[in-house]
Amino acid sequence: MPDTPVTMANIREAHERIRASIHRTPILTSSSLDADSGGRLYFKCENFQRAGVFKARGAFNAVLSLTDAEASQGVVTSSSGNQAAALSLAARSRGIPAFIAMPKVALQSKVSAVRRYAGNIVWVEAVGNIPTSEEYDATAAGIRARTGASPVHPYNDTRTIAGQGTCALEFLGDQPDLDVLLVPVGGGGLLAGSAIAGKALKSSMRVIGCEPEMADDARQSLLAHRIIPQSDPRTIADGLRTSLGDLTFPLIARFADDIVTVSEAAIVRAMRLVWETLKVLIEPSSAVPMAAIAEGKVSLEGKCVGVVISGGNVDLDRLPWKPSESA
Amino acid sequence: MPDTPVTMANIREAHERIRASIHRTPILTSSSLDADSGGRLYFKCENFQRAGVFKARGAFNAVLSLTDAEASQGVVTSSSGNQAAALSLAARSRGIPAFIAMPKVALQSKVSAVRRYAGNIVWVEAVGNIPTSEEYDATAAGIRARTGASPVHPYNDTRTIAGQGTCALEFLGDQPDLDVLLVPVGGGGLLAGSAIAGKALKSSMRVIGCEPEMADDARQSLLAHRIIPQSDPRTIADGLRTSLGDLTFPLIARFADDIVTVSEAAIVRAMRLVWETLKVLIEPSSAVPMAAIAEGKVSLEGKCVGVVISGGNVDLDRLPWKPSESA
Repeated sequence: MPDTPVTMANIREAHERIRASIHRTPILTSSSLDADSGGRLYFKCENFQRAGVFKARGAFNAVLSLTDAEASQGVVTSSSGNQAAALSLAARSRGIPAFIAMPKVALQSKVSAVRRYAGNIVWVEAVGNIPTSEEYDATAAGIRARTGASPVHPYNDTRTIAGQGTCALEFLGDQPDLDVLLVPVGGGGLLAGSAIAGKALKSSMRVIGCEPEMADDARQSLLAHRIIPQSDPRTIADGLRTSLGDLTFPLIARFADDIVTVSEAAIVRAMRLVWETLKVLIEPSSAVPMAAIAEGKVSLEGKCVGVVISGGNVDLDRLPWKPSESA
Repeated sequence: MPDTPVTMANIREAHERIRASIHRTPILTSSSLDADSGGRLYFKCENFQRAGVFKARGAFNAVLSLTDAEASQGVVTSSSGNQAAALSLAARSRGIPAFIAMPKVALQSKVSAVRRYAGNIVWVEAVGNIPTSEEYDATAAGIRARTGASPVHPYNDTRTIAGQGTCALEFLGDQPDLDVLLVPVGGGGLLAGSAIAGKALKSSMRVIGCEPEMADDARQSLLAHRIIPQSDPRTIADGLRTSLGDLTFPLIARFADDIVTVSEAAIVRAMRLVWETLKVLIEPSSAVPMAAIAEGKVSLEGKCVGVVISGGNVDLDRLPWKPSESA
């Protein structure tokens, strides 16, 4: 088997590096969801992770991997959302600056999260409302030139992928009976890390990526055997609008078993179902695996099914259901 | 010390009786809530309890305390909400019928919860929209006469109080450092049980009941040294509108240290704060202790503070904040 850029050994090292800085998140179950699905469902609640999202794992791993000399100049990332908050938190914990290239249209709640963790926001100069990746890159390059900060990519980065893989390491440690592991896929850092760890720890377990039909670049890319970038992803699952990267794509192609897609309506229904049944706030991206279960996209009769609840950062002023829906 | 109708021994027996039937709920923490409050806060998440509420503890204890002959005729309670669902669940688990005297104006979500657990709803005949306690009692008496079902009171019942006390037993077992325990108070079953267990396990720990200013019968009753029934409780905390009973009042007077009250606005703010920070759904009644913390009603600088999150049964179509509030 040829070498890969991220190995199980890297994931174990990452866990040793970050375990004192992150939460070992709990696993929840629900007898009523089990009865409805025919499987035994286990939900690994990364919405309870620091900064409310699994991305704290990769961010802490990257920040804590830097030498003191590198760290002293800070870190930089481009993000409108969860990565911005997670990297700001990790940097503050090490006492170093984080520079975040953010779009001017970022939600106020996301801006507040970065400021809470003392991140330095640099607004991306853009021609349109939503910056292009070139405009993001130009802003981040300017920050690097000015500060010497180390870039930390939200997913296409070996340290990030190894950090995200620690979630599956904990999950299988606490619940070794899993037959299937369902993971949302956007840029692919969480799925790549989960698939590497999952297959290393339990080769018989199926690792399945779940993505919105409206942002199905991972499925298309795997079918085409090359990266098909996402264009115009109109999905409510804002964490899953990004495309696979040149590091995550081959890892997913090699280690993940399948990609399934779900409708927007199923995502909203699944999000509400999880809120009402498990009593936890999950963001739309985190509802995608539950939507795949509800829509019968995954065979799970009699199986132990692990679901990664990736994050819980939702805007309570913008809930995706109408008050009349079930009143 | 004179005997009391509910002792620590009763609470330990209750825990042995129900532990296989209930969840040992997790304790959550938040470094940002700690930083804001000056204390170290521990949240015992009974919103993750079966039926979504601590009342499953008392309901299971009552149902499992019955002899086989008693049990065969079922159980009966009067409730428009959480007790109805919790008792239905406990009865179904023992394979016996539950009869629930419910008002015709009960929320559809509460009716659905009872039906999910196969409870038998008997609508209370009432002159007005909201039945009086006499009208509830007449309906329940009719059920008892017809079926022989055993009554299980939502709070004024030794088995219920002992069951609710198991929450504090678990809490102090998992987190023995608590200096203060904050508990919402409505009818007083949870507070009475928590105070008995809390004082027995750690006499130096203060046990404080938290209630809405708009339903402050517990505070008034303690000040007056007699039960002052609640009249017209216009609080969003629907689980706390009931008055203390003749069993719960003297137990609270003897074992609890204080009662503090909070405003309606503080309850709504605290509910939202917990949702956004801890990423868990809590019902308005459960936000009352956090409101007391946020309003500075409890001294907690440098202290370990336990907060009982009593339940998570909310109607997602009727959230108590306006979309513009923080947008």
